Amino acid sequence: MRTKLWLHDEKGNVIFGMGRTKMLEAIEQCGSISAAAKELKMSYRAVWARIRATEERLGGKPLLIRSKGGASGGGATLTPFARDLIKQYRALRKGVLSQSDKLYKKLCEPLIDQ
Amino acid sequence: MRTKLWLHDEKGNVIFGMGRTKMLEAIEQCGSISAAAKELKMSYRAVWARIRATEERLGGKPLLIRSKGGASGGGATLTPFARDLIKQYRALRKGVLSQSDKLYKKLCEPLIDQ
Repeated sequence: MRTKLWLHDEKGNVIFGMGRTKMLEAIEQCGSISAAAKELKMSYRAVWARIRATEERLGGKPLLIRSKGGASGGGATLTPFARDLIKQYRALRKGVLSQSDKLYKKLCEPLIDQ
Repeated sequence: MRTKLWLHDEKGNVIFGMGRTKMLEAIEQCGSISAAAKELKMSYRAVWARIRATEERLGGKPLLIRSKGGASGGGATLTPFARDLIKQYRALRKGVLSQSDKLYKKLCEPLIDQ
């Protein structure tokens, strides 16, 4: 069974999900948005637009601390809020997946494996 | 929060999900694949291909009893297995959504509503 889950606003716009979790984790690892985008085989614009949208949809809470300029073109690290968001989303996802699995085994497997 | 869930095979091919549930329910209501396809604004081929794929991926268990010919172009009704599959999938989905909601309220809402 496959289960996907996102947080979204009233209009159906994605606030947060696995994709954005991976973007933030890549930024944390790589130290900048551009390096993270390269790692994820995405454009800088695509990564940046999603992170900006999440920040806006969470009422303007910043996810990144950016340092501009320098030879490296500036870096980015995560705010404590971004770290908490990743942690809680991952815990939510883990709980939902484990409960889905139990329910699937109880409700659907007996029927399908007949 | 939005949660989607499907049953899929080892290759990642969809076996069953909300889309196919709606197709089968429309066939049950409308009495034929073509009328159901029209109702769902899908092509006959698209509906039929998905149902065939589900039957194959479940080891050849039929979902439909088809009656060919006649002025109406033939009809289709669900097998008892198809009815059970819908029932169990809906129960699974309901359980997962309600548990996701509880977990979301516990894990993410306190962080986001700060």
